[in-house]
Amino acid sequence: MTDISTTEPTKKGTAAVTAAVLIIGNEILSGRTQDTNLNHLAKTLGSWGIQVREASVIPDIEETIVNSVNTLRQHFDYVFTTGGIGPTHDDITAECIAKAFEVPLVIHPEIEAVIRRREAPEDVMQNRLRMARVPQGARLIDNPTGGPQGFALANVHVMAGIPLVMQAMLSSLEGKLNTGAIVQSRSITAYLGESQIAAELTAIQDRFAELDVGSYPFFRDSRYGTTLVIRGTNLEDLEAAAQLVRDMVTAAGGEPLDAQR
Amino acid sequence: MTDISTTEPTKKGTAAVTAAVLIIGNEILSGRTQDTNLNHLAKTLGSWGIQVREASVIPDIEETIVNSVNTLRQHFDYVFTTGGIGPTHDDITAECIAKAFEVPLVIHPEIEAVIRRREAPEDVMQNRLRMARVPQGARLIDNPTGGPQGFALANVHVMAGIPLVMQAMLSSLEGKLNTGAIVQSRSITAYLGESQIAAELTAIQDRFAELDVGSYPFFRDSRYGTTLVIRGTNLEDLEAAAQLVRDMVTAAGGEPLDAQR
Repeated sequence: MTDISTTEPTKKGTAAVTAAVLIIGNEILSGRTQDTNLNHLAKTLGSWGIQVREASVIPDIEETIVNSVNTLRQHFDYVFTTGGIGPTHDDITAECIAKAFEVPLVIHPEIEAVIRRREAPEDVMQNRLRMARVPQGARLIDNPTGGPQGFALANVHVMAGIPLVMQAMLSSLEGKLNTGAIVQSRSITAYLGESQIAAELTAIQDRFAELDVGSYPFFRDSRYGTTLVIRGTNLEDLEAAAQLVRDMVTAAGGEPLDAQR
Repeated sequence: MTDISTTEPTKKGTAAVTAAVLIIGNEILSGRTQDTNLNHLAKTLGSWGIQVREASVIPDIEETIVNSVNTLRQHFDYVFTTGGIGPTHDDITAECIAKAFEVPLVIHPEIEAVIRRREAPEDVMQNRLRMARVPQGARLIDNPTGGPQGFALANVHVMAGIPLVMQAMLSSLEGKLNTGAIVQSRSITAYLGESQIAAELTAIQDRFAELDVGSYPFFRDSRYGTTLVIRGTNLEDLEAAAQLVRDMVTAAGGEPLDAQR
């Protein structure tokens, strides 16, 4: 793991830069809410050259959050959390990050200023100021929606759970993170059973060990099919493997359809 | 954790029965596919009296799968996995479960029979028979779509990644698992800022320590609002807390709208 805990200028490298996503919220685990943040994070970070390697959905329980953050931040270059930074009693992410890093929780003057911009009765203001609490030493993550900012401490980035706000915060990080080689992909769809091409597909995977060759079956229009996805950072190999996959589908009696991704 | 590793008749208890969900698949982590299996599992298991407490999305990497399964199966009553049980080289879930339990991988005659029902050239059949491999001692999970079955070993249930197939397999488990008290919920939506009711909401949470009181802000029709969700197993407390929440919203100048869930 590279040390990327500082605010030094963005580094672009060819090595992989990895991330874990931590979705904090009982509402995802109860099934009340369908998470969409992981998908947005995976696609956006991936397009910047940061590979999401693992994701966890955990409840609003202090011990669980603290332990998860401390495990993930040691195993991945970046950790991105969503959820639990609002003003209510169940918003405990900021204090958990402070506990994970063993630093005090402090009021951040810039977040406080944003919060005080909107007038409110004193008791309501006091509740809103909960959102200005950050672990000591935290850097701010801009919030282009105009609400309170998110924050980062070392390699942990803490963002809102509301998709629109999370997406806005994430967009403000573009160009400010260390990035590595961008994983690109070619996808070929065929209305063939996976078993009809399994052996040949293994041979293609074996020939290109640096690529990730996956088969993702689906059931659509009353037919089974599979999308064959090749991912990797070497474009030349990617194109060569994709052509072998197209030839393989044709040889098996199928029609290779280039898919969007 | 109760021992629920046998096939003895279903037990219905009042204690919580817990589960972890393990989503296995590079396609979720790359952002190519939006996962919907967690949401379906959380809702369905929840309605049976099994509470999903944690979920992880992990890549098709043997060590990661083995370690995740071994950690989760010790911490939760049940583990449900989705993905990685097809016939291609990237389908490694069955062998990883066998490694996690340190048992050999064997061909299950009942799955083989299902696979051989559909005729195929010998080489294609050999690939399809990969789907008949299960860890020794595994029990079958029916597959009402007519395809190869899933399997369970001790408290770990292994299902397909295709949502339609996963849902069919899960439905076949209804009535066959140990279940506990069912968590019910009341949801009240209000177009109020969370900060306007944060203090009162904390007081309601404090008064009903056995309930889980959550506030889930949203941005809809150009307005911020929040859905206040109370969850718990004691219906009388649930109704009492819900009424306090409605009164609180009214007192704050809002209109309490009972939400669907």
